[in-house]
Parts: sequence; C-alpha cells; structure tokens
Amino acid sequence: MQQRMEALKRRLSRQGIQVGIVTSPDNVFYFTGFMSDPHERVLAAVFFEDSDPFLICPLMEAPDAVRSGFPHSVIGYGDAEDPWKKLKEEVEKRAGTVKRIGIEKSHLNVERFEILRSAFPSSGFVPLEETINELRLIKDERELERLRKAGEWADRAIEIAIRHLKEGVTELEVAAAIEYELKRNGIEQMSFPTTVLFGANAASPHGNPGTNKLKKGDLVLFDLGVVYEGYCSDITRTVAFGEVTEEQRTVYETVRKAQEAAVALCKPGITCAELDREARNVIEKAGFGPYFTHRLGHGLGIGIHEYPSVSETNGMPLQKGMVFTVEPGIYIPGKIGVRIEDDVCVTEDGCEVLTRFPKTLQIIG
Amino acid sequence: MQQRMEALKRRLSRQGIQVGIVTSPDNVFYFTGFMSDPHERVLAAVFFEDSDPFLICPLMEAPDAVRSGFPHSVIGYGDAEDPWKKLKEEVEKRAGTVKRIGIEKSHLNVERFEILRSAFPSSGFVPLEETINELRLIKDERELERLRKAGEWADRAIEIAIRHLKEGVTELEVAAAIEYELKRNGIEQMSFPTTVLFGANAASPHGNPGTNKLKKGDLVLFDLGVVYEGYCSDITRTVAFGEVTEEQRTVYETVRKAQEAAVALCKPGITCAELDREARNVIEKAGFGPYFTHRLGHGLGIGIHEYPSVSETNGMPLQKGMVFTVEPGIYIPGKIGVRIEDDVCVTEDGCEVLTRFPKTLQIIG
Repeated sequence: MQQRMEALKRRLSRQGIQVGIVTSPDNVFYFTGFMSDPHERVLAAVFFEDSDPFLICPLMEAPDAVRSGFPHSVIGYGDAEDPWKKLKEEVEKRAGTVKRIGIEKSHLNVERFEILRSAFPSSGFVPLEETINELRLIKDERELERLRKAGEWADRAIEIAIRHLKEGVTELEVAAAIEYELKRNGIEQMSFPTTVLFGANAASPHGNPGTNKLKKGDLVLFDLGVVYEGYCSDITRTVAFGEVTEEQRTVYETVRKAQEAAVALCKPGITCAELDREARNVIEKAGFGPYFTHRLGHGLGIGIHEYPSVSETNGMPLQKGMVFTVEPGIYIPGKIGVRIEDDVCVTEDGCEVLTRFPKTLQIIG
Repeated sequence: MQQRMEALKRRLSRQGIQVGIVTSPDNVFYFTGFMSDPHERVLAAVFFEDSDPFLICPLMEAPDAVRSGFPHSVIGYGDAEDPWKKLKEEVEKRAGTVKRIGIEKSHLNVERFEILRSAFPSSGFVPLEETINELRLIKDERELERLRKAGEWADRAIEIAIRHLKEGVTELEVAAAIEYELKRNGIEQMSFPTTVLFGANAASPHGNPGTNKLKKGDLVLFDLGVVYEGYCSDITRTVAFGEVTEEQRTVYETVRKAQEAAVALCKPGITCAELDREARNVIEKAGFGPYFTHRLGHGLGIGIHEYPSVSETNGMPLQKGMVFTVEPGIYIPGKIGVRIEDDVCVTEDGCEVLTRFPKTLQIIG
C-alpha cells in the first residue's frame, strides 16, 4: 500500500494536483487496504502532493479501517454529522487553499460534485481516473498471486458445478450448490451472482438462473467467479448434458476456436482491438457474426470489470502485467448459447492463463 | 408500470421538464419493469412530458428488456457504438431542442454528466430525485404484497440460521447454509451478503462473516434479507448460544425495549427524527448511548437503502405506505454486539410489522 500511495503522490505532484479525493470503494481498497461498501454514505481516501493522506468513513466503520492497516489518520463521522464539512476542514488543515483537486469523475455523482464545488469554490476539478487506472492496469506480483488463487477456485467451482448436474435439477439449485460448497471451503464472496443457464436460456448473454429444469440434450452454461483476498476471477464454461446435435457442436467448436485463437495471440504489443478482431474473424467466417453481440473481454482485478476493455475500438497495446478476460460467445435467440471464458495475464512474451478447466467439449451424463 | 410512467410524465410537465433521463437500475425497474445491472455500460429510461418514453440498453440485453413488458421502444447499442449519440438522436426526434432535462444527480456520475452537457449544450439540468423519491416513498398494494413476502422469507431464513448453530461451526458455514436453503426454495437473490457474526465479532456493526468458530456463551447476530420479485427485506436477530451473562442479557433487553418502543410509536404524523429519538432515549437512559453509533433505520423497497432515512436529523413525518427498518443496536468494542431489526409499513393509524420472528431472547443449545 505504501508504495502505491507514494506512486499516487508523485503523479499528483507531477500533474500539479494538490489534493486527490478517491471515493470508489475499489480504489480506496487499492490504496489503503480498507475494503468497505458504504452504500449511500460517504467514504473517501484523500491524498496530497506533500502531506500525509487521510481516510474518512462512517463512524461505525472507523475501527475496521484502522485494523485494516492504513497507517494514517482515520476520521469517522456520525450519521448526524456532515462528512463534507469534516473533509473540507481536514483538507484545509493539510493543504490550505487548493488550486486543483483530482476526483473520480466516473464514480463521483453530480450531487456530490456540486457539494464539493461549493466547499472549494476557488478550486478546479480534474479527473483522477487515468492516473489511477494506469497504476491499477499493471498488476504487481502480490496481486497476481491473488488472481492466480482466484482462478484456481474458479476452476474448482466448475468441477463442483458439473457434479451437480442431473436430470430435473434447476438452474438455481445448481447455482446455490456451487456457492454453498465454495463458502464452506472459506470463500467469502463471489465476484458476481453465479450464473447457471440451461438450453435456450443460455442464449441470453446476461440471463439469470431460474427454475428451469435440466433435460437431456441441453447445453449448460456456467459463468462465475470468486473474490480471493479482494481480487476477482471470472470463468465461463459451456458443457453438454447428454448427446449433442451437430449444430450445437458446430457452435461450440466455433467459440472454442475463436477463444483459443485470441488467447494464442496475447502478448505485449498486440492491441485490445486486434485480439477482439482475431476472435471475431473466426466467428464471422463460420457465419455466426451477428450472434456474437458483445466485446471480447474486460480487465479484471479488484473490480470485475476494469481496464483494459478488450473491444473492437480499443487501440491500447497489451503490456506485461495486464489481466483480462477472453470470452467470445455465440447466442442464437431461443435456441443455443455458448460462451467460453478464461482469465489471462500478459507475460514477457505471451500470456499466462489463470483459469484452466478443460475447453474440449465435456459431455456429462 | 403504466400508472407510474403516467405519474412521472405529469410531474415532468408540471415542473417544465421536457425530458427525464432515468439511469439508476432501481428506478429503471420501477418505471419500466426491466431489471438489469449494466455494470459500466449505459442503461437509461427516457421520459417526456408529451411523447412516449424509450429505453436504451446494451444490445445483448435488448431482448430481455422487450420481454420484461415495457410497451415502448427498446433501443440496443453494440459495444462499439456510442450510446449517448443514439440517446441524443432519439431525444431530438421526440422533443426537438429541449430547455430543461431532469437527471438523477445522486446516480449519474460527473463523467457522464459532462457528456450529456456537451450533447445538449443549450439545455439546463435539474435533479429528478425528489420527484422519483416522492413516487417511490409511498408503496402501492402490489409493492406491499411483495414486501410482505420478502419479510416472510426473512423470518424463514432466521429459522434456518438457528437450525445451523452448533459448537465449532464457522460464521461463513452458517451464512452459506442459509443462502443455500433459500436458493433451493426458489429465492434468486439475497438483498445483500448474509451476515452471521459470533461473540465479539458482532461488536462491529458492519462486520463480515469469517472462519470464527461458534462457542458456548456467544451471542450470535444474523443480518440478512431476500429479494422477492424485485423487493427487499432486511432483518436482524441476535440470539444466545448457551448461557448468557448478566451483561449480555442487559444489553439485549435494552436493545429490545428500544426497538419495541420505536415500533410502537410508528404512525402517520410522527417524524423520522422522533422515532430515532424514542429508541435512542431508551439506550441512553440505560447508559449505552455512546455504543449506538448509527441511525435507527432506512427506507426499504426495490433498494435496500432508500427513503426515508430514519435518523435524528430527518424531520420528515411518516405517511401511510412508507416502508422502513427499525434497527437499534449496542456495540461494545471487542465484547458484545446486539442489534434487532424489523421492517415496518406505516398504516392508517399505526404500522404493520413485516418481519415477525420472535424478539424475546432465544437461547439455543
């Protein structure tokens, strides 16, 4: 944390930003080690180009913040107090009148921005995102260690998932069983609600599990991930329950080829757009282009969707230490849905795949 | 939905707002019936004082949006398209040049606000929150029916929770077992991650379950809720595992008296501040004032934290149809944590308590 705070301080100073107000829970965690969801309450870590930072949080969470190891002032406020007034006082104590304040423009809402503007009427406000995203984009070894573990647990979750497939079971029952077994094994949190979809339900790329019952001939799509010490994994596998039709197999193999082609291309210098294009070409050539309706992937770390966005329009070149998903899919409405997703980390000359459950079509039952 | 959309239209017209852009998933659901978490993608329901509304969402979710029953245009955009450009075109098609645009200032972030400002350079932007919160504050019969069901499931969850208490079990195991049993019974989603805390762990009002093991003499705090057809419940019960000390009992009975006093006071005309004060007085008189570190409660509905805020500083009088939590607590750091929470709905002359698990101290094992 100390290193990350120092890096931020240097960048603030270089950009002539006297104060950086960090308000998204993920970024607060990244810099301070304190993870908290304050709901509608205010949580902010405030950094200075030449003073020590402070953390402001709901009074009842202050002891947890201190315990989390943040080595500077933790300032709690009660529900009847005005956190912005306290923040202003603490900022002025440390930095006097400030010319430029950095904020998270993609997190801070307009209401809070207007409060800040009237609290600091002579300050200009500039976005901090790029600075912070640049820091977060490249994972350090400690982060990679956690991402690897999160990936291993994702693989285990798919094994568990497959063990629970039997005729007549519902999507929700399988989803519940997966989360139950993981929690019994000490996993405190999933990256997002576990998705289990049977048959035509899988044709909706953001479908939710329901009381749909498994039957022979269904393809089954699992999309899930765990949070391991604050870091997320995200895996998708599609397996067959019983015999597959030729069409199901063709769709599956097309997705697999697209996914493997993109993974094989990963290395420093290749752009996100090129990766997306690589997978999209395979799917288009097979005639399923219109059914691949989303980008190839997204960055992964403390957040389940972070930089880089692996899309057709992102010309950002890959760099060593970037971690993201590679997840092409084909969705034929009312009929078939297949997606295969791995988490990868860019290395010196290629990539390390963090999720390793087999991708050859698994036929269950 | 139709009624709610009409009510919003009338209010927009009355306030001279030509266009209302609704972006928070909860409010989009409230008006359109379409529930979706678009993550960092753009989701907006756009309303007009004198045209039909439209919904704009990621392309891959458009079929789900149509299926959800929204009777007007659903406009999908691909990952490589600019949703703001589409939104601007659709707005201009329906309303020409607009003078005033309503936005959710407590939801919309600064980055998106700046995009909107440059897309509509001659428009003024006003907050829509009050208008929408006024509508959502008073629950209609259909909403109450769902909130009652959500409350019943919360009671059942506490019964399940208690069945899983045995010496040596961990907080996480109990939390996992609760969610598993509920999901097997068709509950798709919890209102928030289930909290189970043993002994001194419960002294942190926002603590997370961990691998702490249950032992005789512990107080056990459960805080959980389910989402039932889009509506949340939120219950807290504290039970004793084995014998209790005199101090534990005193703390428990103080919280119970405070909670019951506040519930008994609920009726139209009493203010939120008076309710909070009523419970706080009981706790202060017993000498535990400094250990009740949060407000008495919060509104409940589609959101787990919505209006009204039941705090010392909110002079809003209760009205029939308001639904909120009543949840005083006493937290003696490192030692004892007790909280008791019910969901209540204000009626003509009192309140209906939606959560009914007994509040007399339950001694388990």
